[in-house]
Amino acid sequence: MPQHIIRAQQFTKQGLQRIFALADEMRATLESGCRQKMREYLSGTLMHAIFYEASTRTRFSFESAAQHLGMNVVSTDNASQFSSAVKGETLEDSIRVHAGYRPDVIVLRHGDDNAAERAARIIDTYGYTTHLINAGAGRQQHPTQAVLDAYTIARAFTTLNGLTVVMGGDLKNGRTVRSLAYLLGKFEDVKILFVSPPELRVGSDILEYLERHAIQYEQSADMHEALERADVVYWTRLQLERITDLDLAFRMREEQVKRFTIKAEHLHLLKERAIIMHPLPRMTEISTEVDRDPRARYFEQAQNGMYIRMAILVSLVQRIEI
Amino acid sequence: MPQHIIRAQQFTKQGLQRIFALADEMRATLESGCRQKMREYLSGTLMHAIFYEASTRTRFSFESAAQHLGMNVVSTDNASQFSSAVKGETLEDSIRVHAGYRPDVIVLRHGDDNAAERAARIIDTYGYTTHLINAGAGRQQHPTQAVLDAYTIARAFTTLNGLTVVMGGDLKNGRTVRSLAYLLGKFEDVKILFVSPPELRVGSDILEYLERHAIQYEQSADMHEALERADVVYWTRLQLERITDLDLAFRMREEQVKRFTIKAEHLHLLKERAIIMHPLPRMTEISTEVDRDPRARYFEQAQNGMYIRMAILVSLVQRIEI
Amino acid sequence: MPQHIIRAQQFTKQGLQRIFALADEMRATLESGCRQKMREYLSGTLMHAIFYEASTRTRFSFESAAQHLGMNVVSTDNASQFSSAVKGETLEDSIRVHAGYRPDVIVLRHGDDNAAERAARIIDTYGYTTHLINAGAGRQQHPTQAVLDAYTIARAFTTLNGLTVVMGGDLKNGRTVRSLAYLLGKFEDVKILFVSPPELRVGSDILEYLERHAIQYEQSADMHEALERADVVYWTRLQLERITDLDLAFRMREEQVKRFTIKAEHLHLLKERAIIMHPLPRMTEISTEVDRDPRARYFEQAQNGMYIRMAILVSLVQRIEI
Repeated sequence: MPQHIIRAQQFTKQGLQRIFALADEMRATLESGCRQKMREYLSGTLMHAIFYEASTRTRFSFESAAQHLGMNVVSTDNASQFSSAVKGETLEDSIRVHAGYRPDVIVLRHGDDNAAERAARIIDTYGYTTHLINAGAGRQQHPTQAVLDAYTIARAFTTLNGLTVVMGGDLKNGRTVRSLAYLLGKFEDVKILFVSPPELRVGSDILEYLERHAIQYEQSADMHEALERADVVYWTRLQLERITDLDLAFRMREEQVKRFTIKAEHLHLLKERAIIMHPLPRMTEISTEVDRDPRARYFEQAQNGMYIRMAILVSLVQRIEI
Repeated sequence: MPQHIIRAQQFTKQGLQRIFALADEMRATLESGCRQKMREYLSGTLMHAIFYEASTRTRFSFESAAQHLGMNVVSTDNASQFSSAVKGETLEDSIRVHAGYRPDVIVLRHGDDNAAERAARIIDTYGYTTHLINAGAGRQQHPTQAVLDAYTIARAFTTLNGLTVVMGGDLKNGRTVRSLAYLLGKFEDVKILFVSPPELRVGSDILEYLERHAIQYEQSADMHEALERADVVYWTRLQLERITDLDLAFRMREEQVKRFTIKAEHLHLLKERAIIMHPLPRMTEISTEVDRDPRARYFEQAQNGMYIRMAILVSLVQRIEI
Repeated sequence: MPQHIIRAQQFTKQGLQRIFALADEMRATLESGCRQKMREYLSGTLMHAIFYEASTRTRFSFESAAQHLGMNVVSTDNASQFSSAVKGETLEDSIRVHAGYRPDVIVLRHGDDNAAERAARIIDTYGYTTHLINAGAGRQQHPTQAVLDAYTIARAFTTLNGLTVVMGGDLKNGRTVRSLAYLLGKFEDVKILFVSPPELRVGSDILEYLERHAIQYEQSADMHEALERADVVYWTRLQLERITDLDLAFRMREEQVKRFTIKAEHLHLLKERAIIMHPLPRMTEISTEVDRDPRARYFEQAQNGMYIRMAILVSLVQRIEI
C-alpha cells in the first residue's frame, strides 16, 4: 500500500525528526559536491508534477529536489486543460490515467480543498503503486510547506518545544499559516501570537484545533509588542487576489503599509536569537533592508524546502516510515 | 534513412505483431521493477515533444514512456508561439531548426491534417537523422492511438480477426475512430457497427476505405442492439467544441444523455467476454458505475498507450522494422 | 566565484577561440554517436531555464545542449507568473530562491535590458555557486546568439579578420544585430555595411561603439550593391511587433517586400564564397528558394547555436576560462 502526503496533521513528532535528519543528510551530500552519490538515491524513478494552478516556485522546488536525486520528471503547470470545461474530465479519471503511467510519485497542486484526498483515494482503490504528495490544495493544506517551516525553526532552535511563534500579516487567506499551526500543535509549550488587522484574523477552525490540542494562543493587532516577545516571526503577504471586496483590499493594503510592515527600524525590537520567516513571495511587508540581518531566514527557508522535499521523496520511494 | 510514424494505414499486420510483442516486453520489465534494465533501452537519447495544441494526457504518455526508457525529453505544449502570427515562421522552418538540435525522435502534435507529412518531408529532404512521430494532426490521424487501441483488443482476444466492433458516440468529429477504422481494415472478417445520431455519422471517406478493403460495416442509431452484438464496444465523447452550430450541439447533448450513454443498466446486454473501450477523456457518455465492471478497459487502454509508445520509440531508435 | 555570461562585449578573442574549439569538439562527439561519452561532460548537474518571455527556439537550444551533455533541466517559459502583478515579487527575490535550489547554471530570459546584470549581482552578493547565462534581455543583449553568429562566420572563413559583413533588414529593433556588432568590434579590418530603410537604421550607440573601436562601417539602403560586396550577409526580419506606429509598420512591410527581400534572382550578385545568415525565425525576407543554395547557412547557424551553448555550459561548469 503506498503512503501519501496529504495534510500537515498526519505527521508524528518522530516522523518529523526522521525527515529532518534525512534533510540534513541531503544538504550535506549536495554541498559535498558528490553528484553521483546524490543521484543514486532515486536513480531511474519517475515523478509526475501535475499543477492545476501554476506555481513556478513550488514546482521548481519539487523538480530540483527530484533531479538532484536522479529522479526523472514529467510536468505541467497547466493541468486544468486536462479536465477543461470543454472536455470535462473529473480529477479522479485524470489521476487514474496518470497513475497508470507508473510514476513513483505524483505531486499534485489543485484549487479544490479536498483534491489530494480524492486523488489518494483513487490510487488506493485501484491498487496503483504511486505515492501522492499534496503540493497545495485550495486554501486548506500545503503540508510540505509546513514541514519545511518546522524544519527551519528546528535548525535554529534544536527543538520547537517552548517557543513563542508570532504569525502575522494576512492570516485569513494564507494556506501556510493554517498548515504550520497544525504542525506546531504537535509540540509542547508552544505559544502562538496571531498578529493581523481584525479583518484578516485566522479562521475559527484553526483556533478550535489549537484549543483541542491545548496550544496557547493570543490574537492582537500590535506588531511591536509581538516582535518583542517572538522567538519566531512568521510573516506573510497580503493575499490581495483573494480579497474580493475592493474597498477592503484597498484598506488592508494601507493598514499593511502603515502597521504590518517589518522594517530595519523594527529590528532592535527582536531578541538576538529570534528568526524571521516568510513563505515567499514577499511583497513590501518585509523591507529589503531586513534581508541582510542574520535573523532574516526566509531565503534559507525556501532552500530548506528543497531539502525537505528531497527527504520526503526518498522516504516515500524507499518506504521509510515517516 | 529515418523511419517515421505518420498514419495508421502504414502499419502491416506483421509490424503490429512486433510492436505488440515489444509492448508486452516493456510491461513485463517495468512491472518487474528493473528500472536500470528499463533505462538501458534508450539511455542518453533525446526526444523533442512539440505540441502546437496542448494535450497533457498524450504528452505525459509519450514523456513517461521516454523517461522510463532512459530517454531525455525537451518539450513544449505551447509550440504555436514558435510560429506565431506575429513572427510567422512556417512549420517547415521550425522542424528544420528542431531536427538540427539532433533529437533522436520528434513527437509532433499539430492542428493541420497534413502537418506530420510536411514535417517528415523536411527531415528526409535535408537528411536529418530524426524520427518523426505523429501525435495527432488536425482531425485526421492519431496513429499511436490506433495502435494502442488495436493492442488493447489483441490483449483481450488474442487476434482481431473475426471480431464485431461497435464504434459509438460522435463518429464525425473523433480522430480516434478514423485511425482505428483504418487499422481494423488490416484484419480479416472484422465487422464494424457504427452507432450514432444521424448528424454525427462517420465520414464517407472512411466508409469508402472500408469498402475498398472489403470490411463489412453497418450504421445505426440503436445502441441496445449494438451492445448485444459487440465483442468490442469503442465508445467516444461528444466533441462539443467542434460543433459550431449551437442548436445542434445542444440537441446532440440531449441525444447522448438519452440514447447514447452506457450505464450500469446496460451491462447485462453485453457478452461476457466483450470489452468496453474509450479513448478518454470521458464525460458522461459512460457512467462511472460501469468502471468497476471487469469488461471496462478504458483505463487499461490508456496505460497500454504508454507501453505501445515505449515499443514504438525502441523500434524507431533501434531501427527495428515495424 | 562563479563566472557569468552577461553581454557580448565580455568575450576576448582568445576566449572565443576556446569556445569555438570546444564547440567543434561537441559537434564531433555528438556526430560520432558516442552518447555515453557526451553525457559524461556534465552528468548529474542541473540547469534552471527561466524564461519570462516564451522563446521556444532558444529554450530548446539550451535544453537540448544540456540534455546531450547529461545535464538535467527544470524549466519554465512562463516565469512572469513567478513575479506576477498580483504577487509582485522582484527579480532579485526570484533569483535568490532559484539559486538556493543549487542549479549549476541559471539560463535567464527577461524583458528588462539589465535583468541579467541584476540577477548576476544577487548571485555574487549572496555567494551562490550558480552560473548565470543571459538568454536575451530586453532589446539590448543576447550574447550566446552573438557567439554562435561569430562561430558560424569563423567556420566558413577560418578568421573574422578582414571580412565585409552586410547587416540588413530591421536594424533598429533587432537584438542580434547589436550583439554581433559588439563582437565584430573585437576583430581586425572588419567592415560593416548596414542596409535598411532609413526608418530602421541601427542605433547611434552601436555606431559610437564601432567608432570607438575603429571599426569601419557604412549605411545605405541599396541591397543590391551590398550583396555584391559582402563576405557575410546577415539578414533579419522586420520586427513588426515592436513598431507601434501602424502606418510606419505597414510602410516598412511594403518596403521590405519590394527592396529588402533576398530572392533566388539575387544569388548571382553574391561572391562564390559568401554566406547568408539569419537569426531566425525567417518570414518572407529571404525567399525559401534561397534555402538550397550552399551559401545559405541560417539553419546550420541555428544548429551551431546548440554546439556553442554546449561549449559555454561545459566551460562554465568545468571552470574553463573563456
